[in-house]
Amino acid sequence: MQFAVYLPPQAEQRRCPVIYWLSGLTCNEQNFITKAGAQRYASDHGVIVVAPDTSPRGDDVADAEGYDIGKGAGFYLDATQAPWSAHYRMQDYVARELPALIETHFPATDARAISGHSMGGHGALVTALRNPGRYRSVSAFSPIVAPSQVPWGRKAFTAYLGEDREAWKAWDACELIATVQERLPILVDQGGGDEFLDTQLQPERLQDACDAVGHPLDLRIRNGYDHSYYFIASFICEHFIFHMRRLNLAR
Amino acid sequence: MQFAVYLPPQAEQRRCPVIYWLSGLTCNEQNFITKAGAQRYASDHGVIVVAPDTSPRGDDVADAEGYDIGKGAGFYLDATQAPWSAHYRMQDYVARELPALIETHFPATDARAISGHSMGGHGALVTALRNPGRYRSVSAFSPIVAPSQVPWGRKAFTAYLGEDREAWKAWDACELIATVQERLPILVDQGGGDEFLDTQLQPERLQDACDAVGHPLDLRIRNGYDHSYYFIASFICEHFIFHMRRLNLAR
Repeated sequence: MQFAVYLPPQAEQRRCPVIYWLSGLTCNEQNFITKAGAQRYASDHGVIVVAPDTSPRGDDVADAEGYDIGKGAGFYLDATQAPWSAHYRMQDYVARELPALIETHFPATDARAISGHSMGGHGALVTALRNPGRYRSVSAFSPIVAPSQVPWGRKAFTAYLGEDREAWKAWDACELIATVQERLPILVDQGGGDEFLDTQLQPERLQDACDAVGHPLDLRIRNGYDHSYYFIASFICEHFIFHMRRLNLAR
Repeated sequence: MQFAVYLPPQAEQRRCPVIYWLSGLTCNEQNFITKAGAQRYASDHGVIVVAPDTSPRGDDVADAEGYDIGKGAGFYLDATQAPWSAHYRMQDYVARELPALIETHFPATDARAISGHSMGGHGALVTALRNPGRYRSVSAFSPIVAPSQVPWGRKAFTAYLGEDREAWKAWDACELIATVQERLPILVDQGGGDEFLDTQLQPERLQDACDAVGHPLDLRIRNGYDHSYYFIASFICEHFIFHMRRLNLAR
């Protein structure tokens, strides 16, 4: 697995908190660090940024036709179905193996925030919701909030988790919201001109799920913005401020 | 020809000045707008950014083997040698045709700054030096300052301009510095860890040429930085401040 790490200048003097960034379909560990312009804000705030790849890689890793399944499309879950279950254990990697590695080999504290885009927005939400206490803060850009209900999610979950939709609930942010005890506030930015808004993203489902149980959500629909990294670059500054408020709180 | 334009929010209310950005070898109009993180600063300052391609394009345009000649490697000059002279008129395009188009079809003033990277740094310097009065400000990242003296420049100039090295002087920043009347201040950022520093860039030649005639130059060697867009993203903010001071001056 390859991953990208940005160390701010402050990390030369002391351990720093970490924002984990999960990218979307077709991406790898390069997209965020090349196109989001986030290093400026990481440097200002003194926070490490870690961007993993979006799936296992390698010649012996299962793959399939289509950009939305297999390599580049790991959906940040632990697959249970062959052939995927052999390598597609992205949740275990993102929530456990990678933070353990980062906190051992880099000047990082265990104060963690998590964010992501599209499939990675789903990944950030689900990873925070499934792991109470592990993250101090969570946000997303243009997330897939209800994968069980939309084509991208149904295709991936059927392949990785099987036909039993009960098993999908543990990987669906809108389902998880109903059951979690930890009410970690969620920030979501969503472009109002996003070409996937109605078919794949449907942020109103997350609003409804949060309203139903009183889960704190700040959902911002940004008129005219699309699904691209230009959208992310326009608002990533506000996500860093949001995360840093919580990362800097004393436990 | 394709080019990229960023319009800041201020352009909805009034005409804005323009920074032209010239990219380096192998690039097109996308590199700067995707990777430099400059929109943030253009928005802050109320300046339009225009990024042209680096060469003519199309099936009928001459090309050759190698990333440093032909398409993607126009060197911002007007070629005189066949087959290049048919389409490779990048200086005329960048200094005349493109600004005329921008100032007609976009809410732009005629207050122009020019900057660029590597081959595009050469392009920015040469374009400003050759066109006194047309630019209010010029800067460069990691520019080829003396193309007549280094492999990239010698190869391109031999192809585009022919064997007569006298003809090269009109396209070589260090040669032009000696003869120009307009002493437009130059800002240059150069990575001290740039892999092309000694072989292709040699910024000390520009320092010597400026010192010899008293041309104002602020040459900053940035230790540890390489030739990448990460370097540009790290210091582009300072170039915008530099350009805006002059773009905002009343004539």
